Amino acid sequence: MSPDVVAVDPRTGAVTHRLGADTSADQLATVLAAAAAASEALEDVPLPERVRALRHVAAAVGAATSLAELADQETALGLARLTRELARTAGQFRLFADVLEEGSLLDVTIDTGRSADAPGGPRPDVRRMSLPIGLVAVFGASNFPLAFGAAGTDTASALAAGCAVIVKAHPLHPRTSEAAVAAARAALVESGWPAASVQLVHGMEAGVRLLEDPRVRAGAFTGSRSGGRALFDIACRRPDPIPFYGELGSLNPVVVTPGAARARGRELGLSLAASIITGAGQLCTKPGLVLVPAGEGGAALRAALAEVISAQPAGILLGERLAKGFDAGNTHLSSLPGARLTARGAPRPSAAGFFAVASLWEVPALTATSRPGEVLDECFGPTAVVVEYDGTPELLDVLEAVEGSLTISLHSQPEERDLARELLRVARRRAGRILGAGVPTGLAVTWATHHGGPWPATTAPLHTSVGAFAVRRFLRPVAYQDIDEALLPVELADENVLGIMRRVDGRLTRDPVTAAPGAGPR
Amino acid sequence: MSPDVVAVDPRTGAVTHRLGADTSADQLATVLAAAAAASEALEDVPLPERVRALRHVAAAVGAATSLAELADQETALGLARLTRELARTAGQFRLFADVLEEGSLLDVTIDTGRSADAPGGPRPDVRRMSLPIGLVAVFGASNFPLAFGAAGTDTASALAAGCAVIVKAHPLHPRTSEAAVAAARAALVESGWPAASVQLVHGMEAGVRLLEDPRVRAGAFTGSRSGGRALFDIACRRPDPIPFYGELGSLNPVVVTPGAARARGRELGLSLAASIITGAGQLCTKPGLVLVPAGEGGAALRAALAEVISAQPAGILLGERLAKGFDAGNTHLSSLPGARLTARGAPRPSAAGFFAVASLWEVPALTATSRPGEVLDECFGPTAVVVEYDGTPELLDVLEAVEGSLTISLHSQPEERDLARELLRVARRRAGRILGAGVPTGLAVTWATHHGGPWPATTAPLHTSVGAFAVRRFLRPVAYQDIDEALLPVELADENVLGIMRRVDGRLTRDPVTAAPGAGPR
Repeated sequence: MSPDVVAVDPRTGAVTHRLGADTSADQLATVLAAAAAASEALEDVPLPERVRALRHVAAAVGAATSLAELADQETALGLARLTRELARTAGQFRLFADVLEEGSLLDVTIDTGRSADAPGGPRPDVRRMSLPIGLVAVFGASNFPLAFGAAGTDTASALAAGCAVIVKAHPLHPRTSEAAVAAARAALVESGWPAASVQLVHGMEAGVRLLEDPRVRAGAFTGSRSGGRALFDIACRRPDPIPFYGELGSLNPVVVTPGAARARGRELGLSLAASIITGAGQLCTKPGLVLVPAGEGGAALRAALAEVISAQPAGILLGERLAKGFDAGNTHLSSLPGARLTARGAPRPSAAGFFAVASLWEVPALTATSRPGEVLDECFGPTAVVVEYDGTPELLDVLEAVEGSLTISLHSQPEERDLARELLRVARRRAGRILGAGVPTGLAVTWATHHGGPWPATTAPLHTSVGAFAVRRFLRPVAYQDIDEALLPVELADENVLGIMRRVDGRLTRDPVTAAPGAGPR
Repeated sequence: MSPDVVAVDPRTGAVTHRLGADTSADQLATVLAAAAAASEALEDVPLPERVRALRHVAAAVGAATSLAELADQETALGLARLTRELARTAGQFRLFADVLEEGSLLDVTIDTGRSADAPGGPRPDVRRMSLPIGLVAVFGASNFPLAFGAAGTDTASALAAGCAVIVKAHPLHPRTSEAAVAAARAALVESGWPAASVQLVHGMEAGVRLLEDPRVRAGAFTGSRSGGRALFDIACRRPDPIPFYGELGSLNPVVVTPGAARARGRELGLSLAASIITGAGQLCTKPGLVLVPAGEGGAALRAALAEVISAQPAGILLGERLAKGFDAGNTHLSSLPGARLTARGAPRPSAAGFFAVASLWEVPALTATSRPGEVLDECFGPTAVVVEYDGTPELLDVLEAVEGSLTISLHSQPEERDLARELLRVARRRAGRILGAGVPTGLAVTWATHHGGPWPATTAPLHTSVGAFAVRRFLRPVAYQDIDEALLPVELADENVLGIMRRVDGRLTRDPVTAAPGAGPR
C-alpha cells in the first residue's frame, strides 16, 4: 500500500484533506512518457513564444490569489506574507521572460568562417548557443510553498530554458502544489504548450525513481542538507550522471564589528531579531549565528536580541518533522560546553499543532571553533546562536570555522576599513552573497541576484536558484559548425530577427552578421 | 616503494629516462600547502595584471620549441603536429587573456539600490561578479601532450580565472609535463605571481589524494571514460563535493545522406579516412562511426575509406596500455554478429614499440541497434566502424542508439533539407558540436568553440574545456549587497576604470554607474 498524500493544518496537526495515494510506478511511467514527448515539443517553441508564454503564466499565477489561501492553510505562514510571496512567484516568471527577450544568457556566439586564402588561414564558421538541457525534475522547498514551490523559481527557470518539468510535490503542501501546477499548466496550454510541460508527482519513492530515470536530464532541489545530499548522490551515481542543483540551506553568519556595535548595537539587535523570527525562522537566509564583540556595544546588541526573542509568541512550524528537528537542535545546543539559553519566547498556546518557542543561545567562541560542525550548523526555526568574540583574531577564527553559506553579513563602521577588508576576504570564500547593511532575509529577485554559495550551502557553487542567472542551470551549449543557414536556429542566422544580444567575432552586438572580406563558404 | 616515474619512447617501448619516484604523501602535503597560499595570493591580482601575465605565459610557452621536441620523444606524434600544437597551446593563453580583458565572462551585474520612497519601493544595491573558485586539480590528457597537457587548456583556463593549479602529470609524458610547467611557472614568476601558482605531481595515488583534499575546489580531466568516471566519483563522494569537469572522449558519428554519398562519396571517404588516422587515431574527435547509405554512392565512400586505410603504415600509439586497448577493441569488434574487417593497414615494422595496424570494420545496422553499448563505443586508435543503413528509419535508429558525443557530423545535400532537419534534431540532443561540412578533428579555438557534450562525452554538459567559455568552469559568482564602494572589487565600482562589459540595471554597457533618481544610500 502506498502512503497517503494528506494535507495537514500545522496550527492543529490535524489532517484536513486526503488526496489519495502516492504516485505509483505505473502512474510515474505515464507522467514520464508524456513529459519526454512534451520536452521534445518544447524544443521547437520559438523564443518570442517562450517569452509570451512565461508572461502569460506570470499573469495567471499572480491572479490566482486562492494559491496564497491554500498555502496558508497548509503552512500557517500567514496570508500577508503569502500574498507577497505569490507576487514574487509571478515576478519570477516575468523576470525570466525579460531575460529571454534580451537573449544574452543564451550565449549566442558567432565566429564567422574564413577561406583558405584569408589572412590567418582558413577557419570554419562556428555558431554556438544554449539549448534546453531536457526534462527537469524539481523538488520544491517546504518553507516557500509558492516562490520555491511547484511553480516556483526552479520550475519557472526550467520552463524559461525551454525544458519540460516534473515536480515532486513537497509533502507539507500537496494541495498548494497541485493548484500551482494547475494554474501554470492552464496558462501554458493557453499559450499552445503541451499539457505535460509541467506535471506533479507525490511521494519520495516516485521522486527517487524520477531522478534515476534516463529521460530526466537535470534535477533541482531546495531543502535540507541530508535530503539534498541523498538526492545529489542519486544524480551522481546514475550510469549517466546529471547536473543536480541543490540549495541545502545555510548558517548565514552575521559579524558585528566593535565600531558598529558601539554606534548602533541596539538598532542592529532589533533588526537581526526580526530577521531571525521571520517566517518562524524557517528561511534559508535566516541569520543563525551572530558574532558580537565583547564590551558595551555588544551588550546592547545582545540585550535587544533577547528583548525581541523573549517577547515573541510561539511560532508555528511547517510540519511535525521540522518541529521535532527544532526541538532536537535546541537540546543539542544546550548540551554544548558553556552554552547558555539567554532568551526564550512565550510558551506554546496549545499542545496540539507544531508550535515552536523562540530561543536565543550564547556559546563561547572556543566551543564554536573547537566543535565547528556541532555549533555552526543550521537549526531551522526561530533561534540563533550568539558568539561573543574578544578581538579580531578570535573573530576570524570563528568565521573561518564556518562552512559555505548563502550569505555572510558584515556590519562595520567607515573608520574600520582595514578590518572590513579582512572580513570581506574571509567572507567571499565562504558565501554567495555578502551584505554590508540590512539583513539577509528578504532576497531581492533581480539580474544581480546570487542565491547560492559553496558547499553545503549548495551542491553547485557556480549557480544560483534565484534571479536571472537561474536559467543558466538548464541550458546546454551546442556549436553548429559550417551548417547551412537555412537549417540553423533563427538565433544563429546572419540576420538578427529577434534583436537579441549576440557575440559576433568577439564583439557583443545586436547587429546582423555581415560577411567579412575573405569569409569562407557557408 | 613508490613506482618510478619513467619516460618511454613509444617507437621502441624502451625506458629513456628515470625521473625518480611518484610524488609521496609528504611531498604532496608541501605542494598543497604552497598551492593554498598561492591561491589566496592570486585572489588579489588585479584583472589587468592577470591579462598581462597570461600574455607573458603565451609568449614564453610559444617560444619554448624544446617542448615540441620533448613531446615528440615521449609521444611519437611527430614534430610537425607538435609544433602546431605548441602554437595552439600558446594561443589558448592569448585567447583567455583577450576574454578577461573584454570582461563579460565575469558576468559583472549591477542592480543599483532604490530608497524607500522610490517608485517600486526600496531595493538593495546588489553587485555580482565571478571570482576564482579556488585551487584546481588538473589531470592532463595522453593524446595532446601540450594543448591538453600540463600547461594546456585546463591549466590555462584555471589560471585565467585566477586559480592556482596542481597538475597531475600524465604518466606517458612526464618530461614534457615538467618542462611545460617550468616554462609557464617561470613566466608567471616574472609577472609577479607566486611560484606555486602552478605545480606538478606524479602518480595516481597523489592524483587521488589531490582530488580528495579539502583545499582543492574543482577538478578538470581529459582522458578515458573509466578513468574519468573514477575521478568524477571521487569528486562527488567527498564530504564537500566539488565540480569535476571530465572530458571522456567520444564516438563522433558521421552521417552521410544518400544525396551526399551520390554527389561526393569518394571525396567524403578520403577526407574521413584522413581524419580517422590523424594522430594515429588518438583524437577525442576522431570519427569512430560512419553511417553510409546502401547503394552506389555509399559504395564509393566505403571504397575510398578502405583504400586509404589499407595503404596506411602502422601508426605508433602513445603507450603500452593504449596499444593493448586498441588490440582488445579490434578483437571485440571482430566478435560482433556480422562484423567484417574491410580494410587493414600495413603490418607493424617491428615487434618492439607500440605500433597499431589501422583497421576498418563494417557492422550490420541491426547489430549496432541491438547491442548499442558494444558497437557504438569509442575505440582509441586508427580504426572506425562503418554501418550501412537502408532508409531513413534505420539511419535514425542507429543515430538514436548513440550515446552523448563531442561531435556529430551531418553531410547532406541542399535538396535533402527535411532529412537534414530531422537529423539535426536528433544530433543536437546527443552532441556538443554539429558539423555540416569538414571533419570533426582539428578543433578551432575561438569564442564560439564548444568542446563538450552530454554524458559520456563529458561529466558536465554545461561546459567546454576548449575555447573562451572554458574559463567559466573555474569562476564562482558572489553578490555584494549594500557594500561600501571603497571595499568593492574595482570591477563593481561605479566608475568602470577597467572598461569591461557590465550589466547595469539590466542593460549591457561599458558606461559608469550613475545614481538614478531615488537611488538608495550606499
